[in-house]
Amino acid sequence: MARGIDEFDLIRRYFAPLSNGEPGALGLRDDAAWLRPDPGMELVVSADAIVAGVHFPASTTPDDVARRALRVNLSDVAAKGAKARCYTLALQLPDTVDEDWISAFASGLAADHETYGVSLLGGDTTSTSGPLTLSINIFGQVFENKMIKRSSSGVEDDVYVSGTIGDACLGLGSIVGGIAVDSAADRAFLEGRFLRPEPRVSLGPALVSVATAAADISDGLVADLGHICAASDASAEIHQHLVPLSDAARRLVTDNQPLRTNLMTGGDDYEIVFTAPVSARDTIVSVASQTGVSITRIGRMIPVTPGMPAVTVRDEAGDIVEAGIGGYRHFGEDVAG
Amino acid sequence: MARGIDEFDLIRRYFAPLSNGEPGALGLRDDAAWLRPDPGMELVVSADAIVAGVHFPASTTPDDVARRALRVNLSDVAAKGAKARCYTLALQLPDTVDEDWISAFASGLAADHETYGVSLLGGDTTSTSGPLTLSINIFGQVFENKMIKRSSSGVEDDVYVSGTIGDACLGLGSIVGGIAVDSAADRAFLEGRFLRPEPRVSLGPALVSVATAAADISDGLVADLGHICAASDASAEIHQHLVPLSDAARRLVTDNQPLRTNLMTGGDDYEIVFTAPVSARDTIVSVASQTGVSITRIGRMIPVTPGMPAVTVRDEAGDIVEAGIGGYRHFGEDVAG
Repeated sequence: MARGIDEFDLIRRYFAPLSNGEPGALGLRDDAAWLRPDPGMELVVSADAIVAGVHFPASTTPDDVARRALRVNLSDVAAKGAKARCYTLALQLPDTVDEDWISAFASGLAADHETYGVSLLGGDTTSTSGPLTLSINIFGQVFENKMIKRSSSGVEDDVYVSGTIGDACLGLGSIVGGIAVDSAADRAFLEGRFLRPEPRVSLGPALVSVATAAADISDGLVADLGHICAASDASAEIHQHLVPLSDAARRLVTDNQPLRTNLMTGGDDYEIVFTAPVSARDTIVSVASQTGVSITRIGRMIPVTPGMPAVTVRDEAGDIVEAGIGGYRHFGEDVAG
Repeated sequence: MARGIDEFDLIRRYFAPLSNGEPGALGLRDDAAWLRPDPGMELVVSADAIVAGVHFPASTTPDDVARRALRVNLSDVAAKGAKARCYTLALQLPDTVDEDWISAFASGLAADHETYGVSLLGGDTTSTSGPLTLSINIFGQVFENKMIKRSSSGVEDDVYVSGTIGDACLGLGSIVGGIAVDSAADRAFLEGRFLRPEPRVSLGPALVSVATAAADISDGLVADLGHICAASDASAEIHQHLVPLSDAARRLVTDNQPLRTNLMTGGDDYEIVFTAPVSARDTIVSVASQTGVSITRIGRMIPVTPGMPAVTVRDEAGDIVEAGIGGYRHFGEDVAG
């Protein structure tokens, strides 16, 4: 545990206020919480751990650590069609963490509580000799039996993505120094897409009863669409030139085809990739309009062909692009994310 | 992540079978799970992380790591009067973990699933440069509004503990070498009490509507009773000579009064400390008889006296024993444990 901090004082001052709004949290004064879904609803649960040096650079500010950890989890729940409600937080803190860090971290969480309407249900803090680690379990609500799964995609369904793809991958490259972004504005935009992803909290619930399968893009477009393929016993074919890029990303990859292809497998965008029947195309256009989130059709589901990858990426000429798989691999295919 | 393991293969082979029994786990093939309490029930949620080298010796076998991690959480839920149902598991694995380790770890979980009737709801695995870490969120069920809290204890209530106190503390001392236990049988018993605690899964639910407050003893008797005092705005007075000891513990402390007093603050017993009104004494005797768990009355709740500790420990002569506070301090007062 962080040196010189009385942990109960820390809970009372920094974390207990974050539990306001969730009566079952009992003000974090108990060693458990109670939780009841609203009538007619079920809970959607996702567990996700992030480790300094693995999932974010160790130099990330506490405010950004807080927001990124929370938003990554909000994204998981949104992609399942659910509205996030509360979460538990297990913190493993190295000795280098002091009270200023905790204070800034809690402020980051508080700001995002406002934005996303969630509360802290409970948690646990322990010391560690290793890197800073955060494990979050997030709880959303969806009408009973309405969670959007990975496993219900059908052959011939269209494949869609929200927003733009590859920004976070470029942003992380900029932060760690592998990618040079000359424009300060582009650099700020791309790094921000990595550090403060904007979970698609309005889009996800609007896709209930429309999408046949969905996942958020944490591991990379090819990998996460691949998860849908695996769970649905199908394959997918997507077109690289249809995959939507931001202006900042486009400027970087225009003369760099390998980098453009890398964006197909780069992770951390926290957009939603989903499938829907051809008959739902008009509905999808309406959903995009209602939620204000751009949605782009990038391909379709196809039958499994032995020897072919789950996801085939094609270029404008129709030739296969070797995109690889990319992506992180988490456990639970992660009830997690 | 552990070297040389394909993580999806690992999930399919070792973890997916552990999700049988919980349909919302979707065979761990999705990135979220759904969960609905049974009609008339609410969920009790507890989050707890354990770190190698902090909560258990790094040399602990994978089987014992699995069982201890799960049982510590089962204990949290039991102390709240709930029946455990399922849990999520976030694993942070150092490079030293190989497939044999994972296999033995999963077998340990499987064995305890049988014993305790729980299933894996989901999880997440990541690599870490630090020590092996496990974060569990456990979900139990209790009738609505029936969770036993820490905060409802009344002055004059009796204070009880289940089982025997201090064994795990002595067992840990034996494992790490600070305490010499000459008898091999005693050593095996005490170390087993640390490594494989037996959560009071039958006792906890039987205390619903009887206990006014309860907590499991993870931080130590004085500390965990202190948590009840703090949440209930009361103090407690307990009698060291009434605190039940196992035969093995008694043999070690008979001629060692300081060690005996240490047992009042040693953690990891995973017994239940609870309070109940004097009028419930006969009922408590019945509960002990029905559940086959010994229950011992060790003191009573008293008004808060400024300047006095929350928990006063007295010896047979009525003199105050300086027991200190002891115990670990976790965050959330831990929705966790």
